[in-house]
Amino acid sequence: MKKLVLLLAATFASPALAQYNDADIERLREVALQTDTTAMTITEALTVMGPRMAGTESEAHARRWAVNTLTDIGFSNVREETYQMPTWVRGAESAHIVDPFPQEMVITALGRSAATSEDGITAEIVAFDSVAALRAAPVGSLAGRIAYVSHNMQRAQDGSGYGHAGPTRWNAPSLAAERGAVAIVIRSVGTDWHRNPHTGGTNWAEGVERIPAGALSNPDADNLERMTRLGPVTMRLVLTPRWLGDQESGNVIAELPGRDPEAGMILIACHIDSWDLSPGAFDDAAGCGIITGAANLIRRSGVQPLRTIRLFWAGAEEVGIYGALDYFEQHGTERHALAAESDFGADRIWRVEFNIPEAANADAGRLMRLLEPLGIPRGTQTATGGADTSPLVRNGVSAIDLQQDGTRYFDLHHTPDDTFDKIDPEQVRQNVAVWVTMLAVMANSEFLDAENSR
Amino acid sequence: MKKLVLLLAATFASPALAQYNDADIERLREVALQTDTTAMTITEALTVMGPRMAGTESEAHARRWAVNTLTDIGFSNVREETYQMPTWVRGAESAHIVDPFPQEMVITALGRSAATSEDGITAEIVAFDSVAALRAAPVGSLAGRIAYVSHNMQRAQDGSGYGHAGPTRWNAPSLAAERGAVAIVIRSVGTDWHRNPHTGGTNWAEGVERIPAGALSNPDADNLERMTRLGPVTMRLVLTPRWLGDQESGNVIAELPGRDPEAGMILIACHIDSWDLSPGAFDDAAGCGIITGAANLIRRSGVQPLRTIRLFWAGAEEVGIYGALDYFEQHGTERHALAAESDFGADRIWRVEFNIPEAANADAGRLMRLLEPLGIPRGTQTATGGADTSPLVRNGVSAIDLQQDGTRYFDLHHTPDDTFDKIDPEQVRQNVAVWVTMLAVMANSEFLDAENSR
Repeated sequence: MKKLVLLLAATFASPALAQYNDADIERLREVALQTDTTAMTITEALTVMGPRMAGTESEAHARRWAVNTLTDIGFSNVREETYQMPTWVRGAESAHIVDPFPQEMVITALGRSAATSEDGITAEIVAFDSVAALRAAPVGSLAGRIAYVSHNMQRAQDGSGYGHAGPTRWNAPSLAAERGAVAIVIRSVGTDWHRNPHTGGTNWAEGVERIPAGALSNPDADNLERMTRLGPVTMRLVLTPRWLGDQESGNVIAELPGRDPEAGMILIACHIDSWDLSPGAFDDAAGCGIITGAANLIRRSGVQPLRTIRLFWAGAEEVGIYGALDYFEQHGTERHALAAESDFGADRIWRVEFNIPEAANADAGRLMRLLEPLGIPRGTQTATGGADTSPLVRNGVSAIDLQQDGTRYFDLHHTPDDTFDKIDPEQVRQNVAVWVTMLAVMANSEFLDAENSR
Repeated sequence: MKKLVLLLAATFASPALAQYNDADIERLREVALQTDTTAMTITEALTVMGPRMAGTESEAHARRWAVNTLTDIGFSNVREETYQMPTWVRGAESAHIVDPFPQEMVITALGRSAATSEDGITAEIVAFDSVAALRAAPVGSLAGRIAYVSHNMQRAQDGSGYGHAGPTRWNAPSLAAERGAVAIVIRSVGTDWHRNPHTGGTNWAEGVERIPAGALSNPDADNLERMTRLGPVTMRLVLTPRWLGDQESGNVIAELPGRDPEAGMILIACHIDSWDLSPGAFDDAAGCGIITGAANLIRRSGVQPLRTIRLFWAGAEEVGIYGALDYFEQHGTERHALAAESDFGADRIWRVEFNIPEAANADAGRLMRLLEPLGIPRGTQTATGGADTSPLVRNGVSAIDLQQDGTRYFDLHHTPDDTFDKIDPEQVRQNVAVWVTMLAVMANSEFLDAENSR
């Protein structure tokens, strides 16, 4: 790897020229495709640490490791930026079918779930096949019962099944509480068929008395649905999460300074935290690996781009984008020409979307031509950024979405099963290749912050 | 379904003729392939009950259900045959990495594991990449340590990877105990890549002081191995299984009486119990569904075979074939012409092996011709039967092995993930088609017990 990159640097136009021609970028792309190891090394190192739940020592450990690693690689201005955030942690969790067929089901609490007592709640299940069916139940009608809500999430390359099924997790708990339920269990919002439940935050409506809320693995949801079709089902549910109050979380920032400090910077984002059930390989250790691998190739090329490239390894994404909100508060008024984010797993990039000033359309066209050998088309939608760049993008910063293939993303999303073995090194290198191509084009664009950047 | 089978019966030779010609058998085969629902109905009913651990109320419940169901279907002499057996049950289980990267690993106790205290054992890991490497460690060398043993199990259609990796579970615990280890954790004996550990019995050598023994899920084993390559690893292990003493288990027997009570019977076997982690869909609810579906088609054809077909739904297979041993004790001296067993999942039958008298070779040839449209060849090995027929086959009873495709069997084997959703109805019907073909040929063979049956 080292040898190849040195060779690469040697064949470039002199740093004084300070611009990549197409052949230079093609070479960067090919070096990434064939030889990048930075992305995989970072992904493996983050996952061997185990889960990195926001607000806990494990996230802090990952943050310290990130500062050291990004410094060692050779980035500039590497730093931690900490903030306080309300911290929820998991307790005991079990779901026992008391009747008709006694058995243990695999369950996990949703983020921000309320707790049962240690002995749990024993109650009859009332089953709904959708959030719409739950919504149609009268207020008070679930008094003393445990609501169960299902969905029919479909696998999709663009992850659109999540928008369809997500309300089962986001909204059904609050709706069930409003209708008097003592607790709720949902079918996991996921497309897999394993005994691994999908956690994730739920959103409580203002003023609702929160109830215990958990997700069953999909095979357990199948079995529960079979039983509810046969007759009454009684469950004993134990979920004992608790709030730790405000705890410290933090972002990690690193930079590749550009030639022109006045030009808007390119912000590239991932998140360092994960849910507590897994080491978060897809979500989002790989994202940090990918953006860092790409930025490192720019650094090693010896050509300093026009614009500063800033790496933003966000903290506390999963539990409420506290890192993104803190970043926006601290840095929102700095000049950002473009934001891009890698937070949808580790599979290949299959489509690119833009939200850039018209003046930069030629750069977009150049980028798409340089991605053509990888078979990547331009999508028809407008780029929105990801969770950690959303405050910037909503406030007018340009965005490019390098869309990853999400076909298997929701098999793993927020489950114990999001582990390093799921990562395909070849697809990770493809991601790095696309990212380095994008960075090489856009960090040198003279037109990018013509209109809407701040 | 009902209509088609009635039609089938109507087109047969008259029951008085009491023999199937090839066209009759082809019709039975096609009815099974296209319409059988008995196998799937039984598989679903057994799995909705949840796990059916031997010696527990859940196995007893399944046994009572089986007696009722086999009676309702129309089999004869349906009965439970109970026996007592030593019963081991799971307790708490956890594996916490204390150092270097604190995290929870997914672990499950192996059957017959000893227990830790409730607070567990905290000790350094000594890692071995194979049973051979563990065997090479001197006696006493593991004093105060937790042994970890890995393997390199390969996926194979005939399941042969299990013979290679199985000693990691069967023998390594005893070897580690002999070398002074305070506990052992192994890489799960399985080919999957999910956070589901594989349980299964371990075999303690005579006189060895038993130690706590557990299996990590494969992704956790990967992470532990990564850590042991970096330096010392300390684990806190909690496994609190216990022995309940002798408890009641039992077999379920049902028959389709043959025309000649003196002719040796055809024994077809499956097992009703499962491990306690899952509803045992592949292992072995589907086996009971398949053999019963096939026997039911013979029953409904209206042609009474020469030989009695006896269904043997064994109890307590997983924990030490107590049901098979009891059956052999009660029935070993009865005249068995042939034994066959379905206990390798629910995927298609791809090969057939025989261990029959030479006089019956023409029947074997006829069977293979009738299976030719399904693309099933005759294997080159000798049939051995399965675990529940092994005492009979070892004592000279003929056997036919209808070998199922085991490519994904060890993804699910003994894990929480062995659930109904894994079952492919089309492949199950193929199994029923092969079984009914075998039964139609062999239950009418006049040559089968010519030599070696008892």
